[in-house]
Amino acid sequence: MQVSIECFPCFLRQTVSALSQFDMPEGMRYQIVGDVLGVLKDVDVERTPAYATTFIYRAIKKRIGRDPYALLKRKFNRFALNLYSGLRDRVLRSKEPLWSAARIAIAGNIIDFGIYESFDVEKTIDRSLEKSIAADDFDFFRDELQRHDEVLYLLDNAGEIVFDRLLIELLTEMGKRVTAVVKGGAVINDATMEDALEAGITRHCRVIDNGTDAVGTDLQFCSPGFVGEYNRHSLIISKGQGNFETLESDKNKNVFFLFQAKCDVIAAHLNLTKGSMLLKGQLNKE
Amino acid sequence: MQVSIECFPCFLRQTVSALSQFDMPEGMRYQIVGDVLGVLKDVDVERTPAYATTFIYRAIKKRIGRDPYALLKRKFNRFALNLYSGLRDRVLRSKEPLWSAARIAIAGNIIDFGIYESFDVEKTIDRSLEKSIAADDFDFFRDELQRHDEVLYLLDNAGEIVFDRLLIELLTEMGKRVTAVVKGGAVINDATMEDALEAGITRHCRVIDNGTDAVGTDLQFCSPGFVGEYNRHSLIISKGQGNFETLESDKNKNVFFLFQAKCDVIAAHLNLTKGSMLLKGQLNKE
Repeated sequence: MQVSIECFPCFLRQTVSALSQFDMPEGMRYQIVGDVLGVLKDVDVERTPAYATTFIYRAIKKRIGRDPYALLKRKFNRFALNLYSGLRDRVLRSKEPLWSAARIAIAGNIIDFGIYESFDVEKTIDRSLEKSIAADDFDFFRDELQRHDEVLYLLDNAGEIVFDRLLIELLTEMGKRVTAVVKGGAVINDATMEDALEAGITRHCRVIDNGTDAVGTDLQFCSPGFVGEYNRHSLIISKGQGNFETLESDKNKNVFFLFQAKCDVIAAHLNLTKGSMLLKGQLNKE
Repeated sequence: MQVSIECFPCFLRQTVSALSQFDMPEGMRYQIVGDVLGVLKDVDVERTPAYATTFIYRAIKKRIGRDPYALLKRKFNRFALNLYSGLRDRVLRSKEPLWSAARIAIAGNIIDFGIYESFDVEKTIDRSLEKSIAADDFDFFRDELQRHDEVLYLLDNAGEIVFDRLLIELLTEMGKRVTAVVKGGAVINDATMEDALEAGITRHCRVIDNGTDAVGTDLQFCSPGFVGEYNRHSLIISKGQGNFETLESDKNKNVFFLFQAKCDVIAAHLNLTKGSMLLKGQLNKE
């Protein structure tokens, strides 16, 4: 998936949205928009939107000198934690807990203020549990889990990771050795180690960071330590659009992409409608 | 009203929307987005959004070599002409035709694919005739009309001008000498002489062009002939957001701005909600 011209207004919308998190002199806002326009002029349109977004957020952070989303991330972790025990009950009481936990993990992907401005989490949870979803490779997913003892779980957003915690918890209860992965540096609302700690992921599995603040999972930016883990694992659960954008080209892995198609560009790429939920398996063809 | 950082995503959204009117090689689309990013880097944020938009559309037109909106303008003129006789009846049968015609002219301002992507004209007409509007200087407007024999009527968009025709027709029936003004060159969906002819404005009053393809009415870009007309007239009816942006600073004229606040930036500037309808008088304080 490459940068589409439709991505350009969205890049700037995300910039404006990031700037709205702060009081700052008007002049500085225009300066940052100018910096981002400079980044956009040089965007490599043959690469993914996630790749471009990495440089946009770096430009914003560089000028501001701190993470624009730190407070909002705390807020969404706390919001999701309030839902945690109710959702855990719902998972355990359901006919097939693994199915329910996977669906809820997909629902949690709605928590994303990089692309979305507002969202309704409870409605999204109900939709994920009551309706069919656009891509549903759950049977493959269950089968592959039975064939593997280890899972590398690429987390996406703060808040959302509380929903992932339900699935991770269940996987560990099934005897799987899960390694959850957060970003190595702040970028948009992506989960970092601080978020993993706050959301309670660290209580259930090993958590590592990928050594970079790049959007998605772009191996050229990741630390050798993470790349080693990535190469060693043969089953990967990948959350969110950024991870999909950056990993869909890797056909050497068994990857299950759990996410929502949040913009027209990815929806068109997948030949689905915007807002579609996916549990999309990509199996190693070797 | 100055360029806000919120304008930048919208500038690019308008660019993408203009490009979507055409089949062209993908490479050319990216090239044009690149050209527009260059324009945006140099935007003078102390001037109006309309001023910036002028340069954006010039960049698009220069690369494409023709007017991206020509066909859509035809389409919207024809669409509005189909409503014309029904609306003329509605005006003439109403208690106060001048009031109804003014309201319908404001409703017509919804026809704008520069800012809006889609719109519902019939609903907007009903809303304009049945509800109060956010700024309503109709009494001043009627009084000022009685004090003047001549009116300079600054038209805005193709399609919309059929709605203006109803008001212009009524003004001429009241004995006013109306001069309607179109753009001197194609820009977005703004009416040019061809549109005035197609919409039947030329049947009711004198029509002149302002000598420029600039958005709104920016006297520094207009022809000396138009500037002479502008200076000579003491009562001006100004349609649309672009004309408001560029003329609100002229406190030496009696201007009535008939328009809808189509984006958050102008809504915040006016301290109103987006979608507000206005008949806003600005009277010469001399």
